[in-house]
Amino acid sequence: MSSKIRIAVLGASGYTGADLVRLAITHPAMEIVALAANQKAGQAMADIWPHFAPYRSLPRLVRADAIDWGQVDAVFGCLPHAASAELLSTLDERIRIIDLSADFRLNDTETYGEWYGVTHPAPHLLESAVYGLTEMARPRLADARLVACPGCFPTAALLTLLPVAEAGLIRDRNITINALTGVSGAGRGLKEQNLFVEISEAAAPYAVGAHRHMPEMEQELSRAFGKPVAISFTPHLLPMNRGELETIIVELADGKTLADLRACYEARYAEEPFIHLLPEGQVPATRMVRGSNHMVLNVFADRVPGRAILIAAIDNLVKGSSGQAIQNMNLMFGLPETMGLEAAPLFP
Amino acid sequence: MSSKIRIAVLGASGYTGADLVRLAITHPAMEIVALAANQKAGQAMADIWPHFAPYRSLPRLVRADAIDWGQVDAVFGCLPHAASAELLSTLDERIRIIDLSADFRLNDTETYGEWYGVTHPAPHLLESAVYGLTEMARPRLADARLVACPGCFPTAALLTLLPVAEAGLIRDRNITINALTGVSGAGRGLKEQNLFVEISEAAAPYAVGAHRHMPEMEQELSRAFGKPVAISFTPHLLPMNRGELETIIVELADGKTLADLRACYEARYAEEPFIHLLPEGQVPATRMVRGSNHMVLNVFADRVPGRAILIAAIDNLVKGSSGQAIQNMNLMFGLPETMGLEAAPLFP
Amino acid sequence: MSSKIRIAVLGASGYTGADLVRLAITHPAMEIVALAANQKAGQAMADIWPHFAPYRSLPRLVRADAIDWGQVDAVFGCLPHAASAELLSTLDERIRIIDLSADFRLNDTETYGEWYGVTHPAPHLLESAVYGLTEMARPRLADARLVACPGCFPTAALLTLLPVAEAGLIRDRNITINALTGVSGAGRGLKEQNLFVEISEAAAPYAVGAHRHMPEMEQELSRAFGKPVAISFTPHLLPMNRGELETIIVELADGKTLADLRACYEARYAEEPFIHLLPEGQVPATRMVRGSNHMVLNVFADRVPGRAILIAAIDNLVKGSSGQAIQNMNLMFGLPETMGLEAAPLFP
Amino acid sequence: MSSKIRIAVLGASGYTGADLVRLAITHPAMEIVALAANQKAGQAMADIWPHFAPYRSLPRLVRADAIDWGQVDAVFGCLPHAASAELLSTLDERIRIIDLSADFRLNDTETYGEWYGVTHPAPHLLESAVYGLTEMARPRLADARLVACPGCFPTAALLTLLPVAEAGLIRDRNITINALTGVSGAGRGLKEQNLFVEISEAAAPYAVGAHRHMPEMEQELSRAFGKPVAISFTPHLLPMNRGELETIIVELADGKTLADLRACYEARYAEEPFIHLLPEGQVPATRMVRGSNHMVLNVFADRVPGRAILIAAIDNLVKGSSGQAIQNMNLMFGLPETMGLEAAPLFP
Repeated sequence: MSSKIRIAVLGASGYTGADLVRLAITHPAMEIVALAANQKAGQAMADIWPHFAPYRSLPRLVRADAIDWGQVDAVFGCLPHAASAELLSTLDERIRIIDLSADFRLNDTETYGEWYGVTHPAPHLLESAVYGLTEMARPRLADARLVACPGCFPTAALLTLLPVAEAGLIRDRNITINALTGVSGAGRGLKEQNLFVEISEAAAPYAVGAHRHMPEMEQELSRAFGKPVAISFTPHLLPMNRGELETIIVELADGKTLADLRACYEARYAEEPFIHLLPEGQVPATRMVRGSNHMVLNVFADRVPGRAILIAAIDNLVKGSSGQAIQNMNLMFGLPETMGLEAAPLFP
Repeated sequence: MSSKIRIAVLGASGYTGADLVRLAITHPAMEIVALAANQKAGQAMADIWPHFAPYRSLPRLVRADAIDWGQVDAVFGCLPHAASAELLSTLDERIRIIDLSADFRLNDTETYGEWYGVTHPAPHLLESAVYGLTEMARPRLADARLVACPGCFPTAALLTLLPVAEAGLIRDRNITINALTGVSGAGRGLKEQNLFVEISEAAAPYAVGAHRHMPEMEQELSRAFGKPVAISFTPHLLPMNRGELETIIVELADGKTLADLRACYEARYAEEPFIHLLPEGQVPATRMVRGSNHMVLNVFADRVPGRAILIAAIDNLVKGSSGQAIQNMNLMFGLPETMGLEAAPLFP
Repeated sequence: MSSKIRIAVLGASGYTGADLVRLAITHPAMEIVALAANQKAGQAMADIWPHFAPYRSLPRLVRADAIDWGQVDAVFGCLPHAASAELLSTLDERIRIIDLSADFRLNDTETYGEWYGVTHPAPHLLESAVYGLTEMARPRLADARLVACPGCFPTAALLTLLPVAEAGLIRDRNITINALTGVSGAGRGLKEQNLFVEISEAAAPYAVGAHRHMPEMEQELSRAFGKPVAISFTPHLLPMNRGELETIIVELADGKTLADLRACYEARYAEEPFIHLLPEGQVPATRMVRGSNHMVLNVFADRVPGRAILIAAIDNLVKGSSGQAIQNMNLMFGLPETMGLEAAPLFP
Repeated sequence: MSSKIRIAVLGASGYTGADLVRLAITHPAMEIVALAANQKAGQAMADIWPHFAPYRSLPRLVRADAIDWGQVDAVFGCLPHAASAELLSTLDERIRIIDLSADFRLNDTETYGEWYGVTHPAPHLLESAVYGLTEMARPRLADARLVACPGCFPTAALLTLLPVAEAGLIRDRNITINALTGVSGAGRGLKEQNLFVEISEAAAPYAVGAHRHMPEMEQELSRAFGKPVAISFTPHLLPMNRGELETIIVELADGKTLADLRACYEARYAEEPFIHLLPEGQVPATRMVRGSNHMVLNVFADRVPGRAILIAAIDNLVKGSSGQAIQNMNLMFGLPETMGLEAAPLFP
């Protein structure tokens, strides 16, 4: 009998699922027992993923309904929204769930319906779901049965905004988030706009005023401010594979200064293994965190008086997705939080 | 005697200068008589620029002081600030000047000194200098002796903001400009941060809160609003060669709507050959204008009530630099405004 | 009645077709009267192509069978093989054809069937078809009704190899062509391997030992050598949009030297507007020709005695495709050969 | 007292040195005690390397002559040639050396002088130096005091060619190696040709017929064939950070077949943790190995009869440099060979 955590990955044919497998391969306490992808069932991971070419012994892809759940301790859901909740709601209570879809992030099923265009398939699971922004959710993770991992954009935005919002250092209005992201965030779907030549040597915003990560950010910020907050969020797609950078404009609360923001982050993140306030003046860049679970962060003065510019960078597939998911799993199973996530960023 | 405009380019070893030469080669009314670059004097353009390899008959690079100015009708200044004004101030009145440096953009020498750290070398030329944002400066260009071409960021920002500011559709506060730019904007200087591997697969802001294009934007916006305006401007460097995109958040004036903004642009730019308001909902992208003198523009609702998102894209080296310079020259010399600038964007 | 050449483009939704339209827009003697693409019929070019966003007055896409052929003087075929010949064979004799598909490149229908897996749909047109490698085909182009434009790889390879083969300077064996190409050559089809993240930061050969441009090169080389020749050809896909570079190893004929090769190219290409032998030692690079109809070429010693390394670079979409097609059209219609193709390369 | 191997890195300001530090950070048996870089002495690694921003506790850079060698068990030399041998020759015999420069790769000081243009600074160390192509050198590594790690190109070429050369499956003539490499191989030196915009959207060969990795390949191949061999080698620089791919044309020995080559590799590499023969027909690609110590390899028929195409891909900075260096260190110190090198490739 294995003493490792036996995991299944649903949606192993997408970038998020694949990055989870990449990390699981070397995680000392994880054992991959099932990899599911309905469309590619029957194929070897080494055949559909170039970087698993040297790993021909990985389990073959199966259909989700072919998984022997008796062998599984924890499942990672990397399925599209709705499909995820539908499937996960059928699992035995014993199996712990780390879901990377949007299905269990929003507490309010009406908001969910409004933004995702479907009725929530498993509202009864919502109540016990923990919003897995690890650094904020730690105390609730040990006993959680279902953890909903935040979206990549909310991860960086909330780790930046929540501490200073909770400390009363910023105002609850005119929060303006400008985000840059690598293309892996768009998924492996076959769309013309994701072809190499459409994106190389090019940059453009997308989902202007309508990105689905907005309600999630508003939910958590509203909780922090104790009142409903509407934010501005504009993501831009860049010609790079990984990486996410957010440039956030905030209004300082009366009498508060940049120094107060720095002090707040210093206190809050001093002991965090993955969150790093940079030295004064050093600008966060995606190249600082590529392929790692780190986030870098800094604070700058805005030329418009009374405002500040907060900048944070993460790897959208790691801290923004599979890395944070494993960080959550580590805490759910009483393992050291950094286990399997120690790799330093890959540069160049 | 030639009936063409005999031009000299100062600073032909930089990206801006080289792009000007690229366009001049096929411009029917331009004749290149001198190319200057002190550091590379004596070399052939074909030796220092890969894309001029097929053009071995271009004039060799000379030192600026070796130019026979008697042969020159117009000079394009692509030198660093201060050096530019110093040299240009020595030229015969007969020679018309299109300057692409920052030296003649700011009316106020104190502001100039504050941002550029030097005393202005030729304040007497400032008064007659025309700020060459072509679409706004047309009436003054025909007789101008010295035209100061705007910076690349101000070009896109001001063509977007000025019409709606002048029409009273937006408020004069909290104008927040988020910009993306290709690396050619950083110049051909040998700096570690401009090496391929530092930039590829990476994105980062730079000059946060301190970019030198800010006073220029503030000057023109203050003029439009009739009162001093401070803006927020954060540029980001992306892994691409050319292209610039600005995402601008504005507050709508009381009672004004998105439809008012659209109507304003439609009226203002309907007949412009290079400025294009996109159909409702279509997002501007740098790939729409690569290698061309076009600008594309659109208007979107912001989720924060009472605000709008304006997005514009240009090629930083063409409309943002050498293309606009030639557009100005065309008007200064009574030529058709689009002459030599007709090339459609290069995609992919 | 128009004095311009009224053209139709079949397959205007592909990269080749789009690049042809890009060049046609500014060609002084071309008038675009019909753009066909069955799958996207009804849409505006500005809607399916980002770079035509500023060109909303281009004709809408139609189905090929909806073209009013009475209005058309010349047709550019940018369709897949077989589909091309099938359609083109139905046109009135009056309409001159510039075909960019593979259908009329191979004289031998058996070879065609073997490599393309179909029976040739219009063998009766083969005899009169001219293989449109412009610099080699000039005398036959003026009267040609149907010109078959070479593939992009054969264009660079044959312009490099034919002069020295015909001059008896190289041997007819062990010709080894290693090619690099940008991704636009792979077309706009929705395939996983063409997605941005699969190609960015990556390089790989493809179609190893089996690329369909091989029989075409062998046909022309066999003609030059006067005997059947088998070549080695390995293309590699790189993370760039445009550009093609071939590194060709040849064995020198007895007593022949590198100097003989140079002298041969100098004599052959001295007056060519688009083919440029570089100065001794300068290495051809795709950045020298990007977006232009130029080819650069040079000759190097190989460390294996008795061999030489020939290197050539073109833009696969221009000289390798749409540019050469227009160059052919110019000659077919008695226009200056360089008309509409004068643009200097775009760098950076 | 530490039971870890206390290491020093000379040349920690270059890409190779930095990648070594990246791997050492998580290697369970390595302790970084000194990082030297004369030009940047006094600075923190976190200040000169973006990806070490989260690692502010790394030792500061010092001058090489400031290292307390008494604290050092093993030194990694990442210095330029000549400088490397000069410094390493002064170290105490106790300190084991893993050199990544070219200084101890060539047995023959005359060949060294010819290709590197200097007299060898420490010929007395040559005799005992082991050429550290790990998979071939294993038996000699345990006792080696000085291991000379192969260049990146020779690593992939020799791991591909040596087994089939030693088995008599290929001929000793006309070996033609065509190589592609990412830009990190060119180093962090400030040269115009390494700027982002010069390389992005571009490809070109370099050092044609004259690359310094040639004598190294010839030395080892001559040993395998038992007679002097001259090879053809042409490297090409691509717009990517990491990755190296070699397409090698060989002549088969009389009566030998592709199947013989496959069988040879299968036998030779079946148990190797890092060398992977791909399934028949699957084309090696750099994306299969990015950021890892793996090499992938395959065999294809050439259209020229009697020849074969061998293709191999590695990450030039890992298996081609720092990874192989650590693999060698592991064997020198009796550690498991794969320790610290287990990370799966990073894709996308």
